[in-house]
Amino acid sequence: MPIGPQERSEIDAQRGQQTLTRRETVPAIEEVLYEPMPVLDHGFVRVVDYMGSDAAVVQAARVSYGSGTKRSRQDTGLIRYLMRHAHTTPFEMCEMKFHVKLPIFVARQWIRHRTANVNEYSARYSILDNEFYIPASEHLAAQSENNRQGRGATLQGEEAERVFELLRSDSARTYKHYEEMLNEDIHGQIRNQEHQGLARELARMNLTLNFYTQWYWKVDLHNLLNFLWLRNDKHAQYEIRAYAEVMLQAVKRWVPITYDAFSDYRIGGTNLSAKGLDVIRRRLRGEDVSRRDVGMSLTEWNELETILQNEPANTDLDMGD
Amino acid sequence: MPIGPQERSEIDAQRGQQTLTRRETVPAIEEVLYEPMPVLDHGFVRVVDYMGSDAAVVQAARVSYGSGTKRSRQDTGLIRYLMRHAHTTPFEMCEMKFHVKLPIFVARQWIRHRTANVNEYSARYSILDNEFYIPASEHLAAQSENNRQGRGATLQGEEAERVFELLRSDSARTYKHYEEMLNEDIHGQIRNQEHQGLARELARMNLTLNFYTQWYWKVDLHNLLNFLWLRNDKHAQYEIRAYAEVMLQAVKRWVPITYDAFSDYRIGGTNLSAKGLDVIRRRLRGEDVSRRDVGMSLTEWNELETILQNEPANTDLDMGD
Amino acid sequence: MPIGPQERSEIDAQRGQQTLTRRETVPAIEEVLYEPMPVLDHGFVRVVDYMGSDAAVVQAARVSYGSGTKRSRQDTGLIRYLMRHAHTTPFEMCEMKFHVKLPIFVARQWIRHRTANVNEYSARYSILDNEFYIPASEHLAAQSENNRQGRGATLQGEEAERVFELLRSDSARTYKHYEEMLNEDIHGQIRNQEHQGLARELARMNLTLNFYTQWYWKVDLHNLLNFLWLRNDKHAQYEIRAYAEVMLQAVKRWVPITYDAFSDYRIGGTNLSAKGLDVIRRRLRGEDVSRRDVGMSLTEWNELETILQNEPANTDLDMGD
Amino acid sequence: MPIGPQERSEIDAQRGQQTLTRRETVPAIEEVLYEPMPVLDHGFVRVVDYMGSDAAVVQAARVSYGSGTKRSRQDTGLIRYLMRHAHTTPFEMCEMKFHVKLPIFVARQWIRHRTANVNEYSARYSILDNEFYIPASEHLAAQSENNRQGRGATLQGEEAERVFELLRSDSARTYKHYEEMLNEDIHGQIRNQEHQGLARELARMNLTLNFYTQWYWKVDLHNLLNFLWLRNDKHAQYEIRAYAEVMLQAVKRWVPITYDAFSDYRIGGTNLSAKGLDVIRRRLRGEDVSRRDVGMSLTEWNELETILQNEPANTDLDMGD
Repeated sequence: MPIGPQERSEIDAQRGQQTLTRRETVPAIEEVLYEPMPVLDHGFVRVVDYMGSDAAVVQAARVSYGSGTKRSRQDTGLIRYLMRHAHTTPFEMCEMKFHVKLPIFVARQWIRHRTANVNEYSARYSILDNEFYIPASEHLAAQSENNRQGRGATLQGEEAERVFELLRSDSARTYKHYEEMLNEDIHGQIRNQEHQGLARELARMNLTLNFYTQWYWKVDLHNLLNFLWLRNDKHAQYEIRAYAEVMLQAVKRWVPITYDAFSDYRIGGTNLSAKGLDVIRRRLRGEDVSRRDVGMSLTEWNELETILQNEPANTDLDMGD
Repeated sequence: MPIGPQERSEIDAQRGQQTLTRRETVPAIEEVLYEPMPVLDHGFVRVVDYMGSDAAVVQAARVSYGSGTKRSRQDTGLIRYLMRHAHTTPFEMCEMKFHVKLPIFVARQWIRHRTANVNEYSARYSILDNEFYIPASEHLAAQSENNRQGRGATLQGEEAERVFELLRSDSARTYKHYEEMLNEDIHGQIRNQEHQGLARELARMNLTLNFYTQWYWKVDLHNLLNFLWLRNDKHAQYEIRAYAEVMLQAVKRWVPITYDAFSDYRIGGTNLSAKGLDVIRRRLRGEDVSRRDVGMSLTEWNELETILQNEPANTDLDMGD
Repeated sequence: MPIGPQERSEIDAQRGQQTLTRRETVPAIEEVLYEPMPVLDHGFVRVVDYMGSDAAVVQAARVSYGSGTKRSRQDTGLIRYLMRHAHTTPFEMCEMKFHVKLPIFVARQWIRHRTANVNEYSARYSILDNEFYIPASEHLAAQSENNRQGRGATLQGEEAERVFELLRSDSARTYKHYEEMLNEDIHGQIRNQEHQGLARELARMNLTLNFYTQWYWKVDLHNLLNFLWLRNDKHAQYEIRAYAEVMLQAVKRWVPITYDAFSDYRIGGTNLSAKGLDVIRRRLRGEDVSRRDVGMSLTEWNELETILQNEPANTDLDMGD
Repeated sequence: MPIGPQERSEIDAQRGQQTLTRRETVPAIEEVLYEPMPVLDHGFVRVVDYMGSDAAVVQAARVSYGSGTKRSRQDTGLIRYLMRHAHTTPFEMCEMKFHVKLPIFVARQWIRHRTANVNEYSARYSILDNEFYIPASEHLAAQSENNRQGRGATLQGEEAERVFELLRSDSARTYKHYEEMLNEDIHGQIRNQEHQGLARELARMNLTLNFYTQWYWKVDLHNLLNFLWLRNDKHAQYEIRAYAEVMLQAVKRWVPITYDAFSDYRIGGTNLSAKGLDVIRRRLRGEDVSRRDVGMSLTEWNELETILQNEPANTDLDMGD
């Protein structure tokens, strides 16, 4: 189910159709509605629906009758206040729905975020396409030497070539055998009239985890920002971060004031521990503070130094990826 | 915050404004958008936003690129199939947002439904209006004699009059004292220049549970139907059922095919136990089955007889009301 | 991480250790605590912790100070009442924690149940074992001819042999290449001193979906029953049903009264639509009712006949498997 | 339902009973199990069950077969790492169940935390006790002058006296009328043989919001910590903070390593925005930074100064209280 001529024409039909609504409307997100934004080699994200806007956040915080907005400056101040003080419920009043095509191993990370609605393409019911993810050369990373959960330098030369060859040939082979076991190809063509064909729900188990699946995924703005905060982070696996980056751009179009507050307080901000705060306060008073003075582990100390010198190393992703 | 001239004009402003959108739009719900639908003596429900339609349910079930609909008859069949077989996730792809004004004791039942987003008017921050619920005469019911959780006949005569008098005078008195403790009325008028005024977050505790509050409440269609199934039921307290009835009419406008399936399978349907099924099967074969033959309790037996003879006694409401 | 000598001794150590507690304790579930119950060819379910019992359901329904139980007969009646009337919250007061080893394609179905806590073995951080699922001969089913989401007869002869050969050889090959790309085996043995080894988070994508993973999964009793109702159903894929069956036996040990009520009302029961009820009522009055009289589709009519004649065809599983 | 002789003896019966278990047991929390810890004038919190311990967090993070612990120092490091990097899922593997008696207006704040299980005493079914909350003199605070959502100085003299008088007399009166409308007292004594008595579900609406209710509340450790982080904060209303403080002590007994990490990273820590970080970095380099240099609002600037000089002003409570 790549975006072939039929899909293209369905998308164009949706994009071509406009009706009048009394609902809050955001022109900047309407502009890209339904349009696939490419991610990785065969994936995409499409915004297929949305509810609310920055004004809806304000309206909910004020529980007001009207559209909720006062003057733009006050609204911005209120949204920043809500973000700063973890008043999260007004952000739940906005909702976005995405259509996403993504490798199965990315889908397995993604689905860990439970506060969302999802409908996935069913491989019990239908046949999966012959589309699998192969990393671009610059993303073919070695295992990190000092971080068991991270990536090191890019593989080079003969090792890289061998990895590409293995990934490609194993994916191709498992798909070929998937079709053979099904006794049917994706167009419904029967292969061997004397065979019955293995049940789809069983045959799919022969595919490798880099095959693409797709789903509709709907989430409120608060939980979407949480997802993006965790998955746009430099500790997140590159492949899911690639999706988060594209979705973050959609958020920027949709709710620009919220996006700015989020960038300042969450993406660009950091958490400091009591000990970390103690270090900063003492240094600002001109004291010389050592790691032992505050009883910090070496790892924490280094993380703090990184934060204070460069950019925030503010977060990490969820467990169990 | 009754709907005075200012609220009316804010509502009219919202209703008067129309913009073009590429999103799925449902004219029948647009028609009533923002308009308060009265409930009880001072309450209301307003639909303030929605996402999706019957077509979005179909689209999610098929994970399709386009608008999701084939021919109308197939769509209806699919939605009925989904409802019948508890395939609930496609219904989660639609979302509705309500502005509700309701007595606090109703809000306490309502909030038990956790899978929703809510922003309530803050009585820590603001002053509540002098509006409280007094039942209409026909709803001033006695305690049921055989159901500890239900209502009996309507109170009459002198007993009814006394109850009305107590409810009205206690509500009025607690509000008067609320204002006195605040040392301020709802317009910000200070009463006694030498007093400081009790904190709002404390003064509110003097109000009785029939005072009105209000909130924005947003929920997906699956969880909305669950709410309506439980709260539209004859075992639900009348006061929350009054809200459910009005909201059910909004659902009918919004997603008529889903509404029909819901009416048939959930509202009008029933659950049968293994024992209940056994009774029916044997009776249909012409056997005479007694309560002891299937080992049913008297209560269950009576519930079954009621179902088979009249209307379904299909459900009950959540605990802890 | 198959259950080798080291795992066995860790399990025995846990089982050998007993301490005094003031908490509610259920001897029948203590008996099997920590012990792996085998599922499929390499999988298992272990109950690793539990909270509450039938008494805790009763206690919560009564919000009582003491242990909650009155006489056993009253408790049974109360639990049956709660189950019959969808008073679900008291069942949420019990909690069970499982350690499960399961094929990835089963994990993908399982994780759709969002109201649970989960920690999965991380293939970003660690190397997966060389263990994959191959169906037993009697479960190597053909695609159903009349149900796009089901299984038909068992594959036979040469077709079955070919499928087994493909599944086994592709799994073995993808694992061999997984190790080669990692440049390391599961014991940490480096293969080629001049290679860096592909990052684990990338190499895993070469494995097929029948490889085993494992997780800790914790859930309350209400949501566990919901899971078991959907996954123990005959429409659920056999491989996840195999887990549900084993877990259902654990529930029977743990909360026998709840288990009985669940068997009667949910597993053995059924939902009837308003139309279905109409058919039954009219037949019981001796009327001859046709499908057209009630406006039922052929599928629904057949489902109703099946229910009335044999066993309940009461449910189906969630979408998107 | 105050803790009278009968409740006391039920509690003692529970505390007196010990059985052997293979489950993880925490002696320090067993010590206080079932024992009411007083809060406010008539409220309490009782820990009535728990699942897991610090070791369960470690075990889940490692997805291990055995008890999960290595050496104590490594475990502490792991728990601190999980807390620091927002790896929240292992903390969800522990669960605690409370029995809480609390004023209704506090219950209304509390219930906003949706990720928990709750069974509340039913005032539709039963009659509420004549117990209501009256603040101690030192908590009878005026409305804050500069924070619309906060408290100022304590009310004094004649104003305080008047407030106490109003609170006490209105509570007493509404309860007296509650009983009169019910035509029954809490012992089931009928008052007027010729009256029917108003339905309980209606009569309750005459009570003020300071009346006590009670519930069983069960929550996992991650969500419990979130609740305590928000409700133990100095911006939370004193009355709910009083509960949070007592519960925090229970957490300290139960999972001391997690408690320490929580104290350091959450309770004692703070969030810094990108702008805030910028200010600190520049100051540490010896630069003189003004509010305009970084484009901060005055409120934010003051909040930052407070954090850097004294204690963290790190959070605030949820909306809609």
